[in-house]
Amino acid sequence: MSLSLCLDLYELTMAQGYFIYKTKNRASFDLFVREMPRCRSYLVAAGLQDVLHYVQGLKFSSADLDYLRGLKIFHDDFLGYLANFRFRGDIWAMPEGEIFFSNEPVLRVTANIIEAQIIESFLLNTVNLQSMLASKASRVVNAAAGRQIFDFSLRRAPGIDAGIKVARSAYIVGAMGSSCVLAGKLYKIPVAGTMAHSFVMSFKKEIESFLAYAETFPDKSILIVDTYDSKKGVENAVLTALYLKEKGYSLLGIRLDSADIAAWSKFARRRLDQAGLKEVKIFASGNLDEFKISALLKRGAAVDAFGVGTHMGTSSDAPSLDVVYKLSEASDENGRFYPTMKLSRDKATLPGRKQVFRIIGKNGRFTGDVIALEGERIKGRPLLSKVMVSGKVVREGPSLEKIRERFKRNLALFPVGLRNISLRQRYPVVISPGLKRMIFNLKSNLKASQ
Amino acid sequence: MSLSLCLDLYELTMAQGYFIYKTKNRASFDLFVREMPRCRSYLVAAGLQDVLHYVQGLKFSSADLDYLRGLKIFHDDFLGYLANFRFRGDIWAMPEGEIFFSNEPVLRVTANIIEAQIIESFLLNTVNLQSMLASKASRVVNAAAGRQIFDFSLRRAPGIDAGIKVARSAYIVGAMGSSCVLAGKLYKIPVAGTMAHSFVMSFKKEIESFLAYAETFPDKSILIVDTYDSKKGVENAVLTALYLKEKGYSLLGIRLDSADIAAWSKFARRRLDQAGLKEVKIFASGNLDEFKISALLKRGAAVDAFGVGTHMGTSSDAPSLDVVYKLSEASDENGRFYPTMKLSRDKATLPGRKQVFRIIGKNGRFTGDVIALEGERIKGRPLLSKVMVSGKVVREGPSLEKIRERFKRNLALFPVGLRNISLRQRYPVVISPGLKRMIFNLKSNLKASQ
Repeated sequence: MSLSLCLDLYELTMAQGYFIYKTKNRASFDLFVREMPRCRSYLVAAGLQDVLHYVQGLKFSSADLDYLRGLKIFHDDFLGYLANFRFRGDIWAMPEGEIFFSNEPVLRVTANIIEAQIIESFLLNTVNLQSMLASKASRVVNAAAGRQIFDFSLRRAPGIDAGIKVARSAYIVGAMGSSCVLAGKLYKIPVAGTMAHSFVMSFKKEIESFLAYAETFPDKSILIVDTYDSKKGVENAVLTALYLKEKGYSLLGIRLDSADIAAWSKFARRRLDQAGLKEVKIFASGNLDEFKISALLKRGAAVDAFGVGTHMGTSSDAPSLDVVYKLSEASDENGRFYPTMKLSRDKATLPGRKQVFRIIGKNGRFTGDVIALEGERIKGRPLLSKVMVSGKVVREGPSLEKIRERFKRNLALFPVGLRNISLRQRYPVVISPGLKRMIFNLKSNLKASQ
Repeated sequence: MSLSLCLDLYELTMAQGYFIYKTKNRASFDLFVREMPRCRSYLVAAGLQDVLHYVQGLKFSSADLDYLRGLKIFHDDFLGYLANFRFRGDIWAMPEGEIFFSNEPVLRVTANIIEAQIIESFLLNTVNLQSMLASKASRVVNAAAGRQIFDFSLRRAPGIDAGIKVARSAYIVGAMGSSCVLAGKLYKIPVAGTMAHSFVMSFKKEIESFLAYAETFPDKSILIVDTYDSKKGVENAVLTALYLKEKGYSLLGIRLDSADIAAWSKFARRRLDQAGLKEVKIFASGNLDEFKISALLKRGAAVDAFGVGTHMGTSSDAPSLDVVYKLSEASDENGRFYPTMKLSRDKATLPGRKQVFRIIGKNGRFTGDVIALEGERIKGRPLLSKVMVSGKVVREGPSLEKIRERFKRNLALFPVGLRNISLRQRYPVVISPGLKRMIFNLKSNLKASQ
């Protein structure tokens, strides 16, 4: 299915307006998060790969144009323009896996104003979804304090797109793998799985189901032990593990999916250890999120790995980011740019073509960010780099493994308090002197001139 | 992109186990919502069309099989089985737009156990997303008390899939249309749009932008009036409307997107009426949900139509449903079925092949539902009907318009309290005598036999 028409109607109606009045005008738009969700101390950029793929390939088929013509709001010459549409502008962006904060442009588009407008909806949708999921998953990984996290979200992620992207986003921030096979195939992410209650229930006795599974996967079995009675389930798992051991194999683990995971995991660990099965791991799942994982670990749960689904796949406590795509400068017909800003109370925007600088302290750690005008001399690491020029991707993005490594390295350089899941810590983000001056001048001019 | 591998790895590992031990066994699974979200009095079924399309077309390509082979956990004979895989089972389901409650099977699969297992993840993901969105959108429509609702969710819906499906789901429950052009094309939903702040900002003066837009869409313009100063914005809209009127056209509306919508809508209504522009409608948008819409109307907001985005597109207060897919009966090799159930505390399931009956009172209104065994004689309307037999769709689903009409008609027959957005009302759903007996017998047997 072509996603070219995956945009809000007003992108096209405005485009037709621009087509008549501003064919040659250019513009810059910033994509940023207006406000951090109350419960996040940092966000993680993700989605750029999909954005670039979409933008580079965007064109309208004759079926698309037929549909638009049928709406009876578009002029023939504008539809003719769409028939030859290609995005030919420039995009600057933070790399995937970069940590960012509110008001910082994650992505900046400079293009003919029609082209810049038409890609808005897809860019917002994509960066919102993937950055939201990566940011949530990073909290889950932080809470697990070194235990493994597996993404089990597919069944309750909001849609197939989300179900695939949560696997990728969680992997970027340190999850070990995903249950989603398609994500594994598409992104070369390790895939993992256990067994469901239904498998146990489909046999007359639990022990039969365990043995059948163990015979099928003698080195890879994780047995779910709480279908009927967790105590008996653990005993049956012990029997199965001993059977495998005798044959020279090893049970990979057991899974607890309901009831009191802290208590049952300790019970199971004791029983497994008593039986000489120290190598058998304990997996936990069942409506987990970062808070429940943290509480389980505080209670001494003997869990080696967590399977996290619904809460991670929906970012349940913050199921969207306040992403916006705002005009920051426009040009006249001759390409002379002037900065623009929106003044609505609480929704004012930052004008001009901007760069974000990350300030590095003496010990190499990050101490704050500066949102500045492009070209301002700020001593820090610029976060936005050129990823598309004249509609062509400048270079292939890094591999997912590289993105993952980079994220881990960077996160360690931020104040450690940012990783606290319960207390929001504010990271210093300031506006540069040059940008402040531009805002001051623009505000007075705009109000007066309307 | 083929979605065949859009499943949890354990579906395939269990399938391999079944392939070895239960090649000929059949099973029934129920798809249902375990618990209503705290804030919902009813749910709306959606997603069946996509489910049937997926199931009927499901097969594994050689690229899929190559990927699976590379995982080194699947046997060659099982991969050979997958190469020829087709779903050949039966599906019973509630029609799209049906209202349902917790524990009621929305969909029931009876098939070879491998086939029934392999489709699980996709079914859960799809029914979860679309039913969740339809249920949330229905609350928004209820809150608007007759004013129009438009779906503006695309940009912050969790992914492209969600962005398209929210348009369809909201339309089922009474929204007037969507901003999502692709949804319009795919589902023949009316598409709608206004203009963005960026359009205004791209002109030197607000009035220039209004006139340019009005010239482009003389009969379809909705002008956003709060880019700089809402008061001046309304005045500029009045000027534009009068200009259009002189030319024989009519301004469709203005849009308020920030600040105090109740106060500004009343101000705008007064100014428009004073200027003889009673026909110009007022649209409101900006982070709206059912509660904000209800509060605005209580404050007398003069709003004709609401554009609702983020909260509807994410179902923000309940961003997932507690959907599960549970084995309710299994067969031996000779096709003799026996009921199964899971006993875990709080997560017990209902055994047997079931039907849901909706009881109709003397006045034709619905008074309660009964979850019964198939074949039990219950005086009520059965909600599950056969939609797929031996892997073939039995008949085309109704058109979206029909689904929409049916939903509206049905909702009106439920107790009116269910439409209250603030107070959760419990609709009576009971278990039939036959099902109760089966549960009682099974519980004692199962616990004893493990």
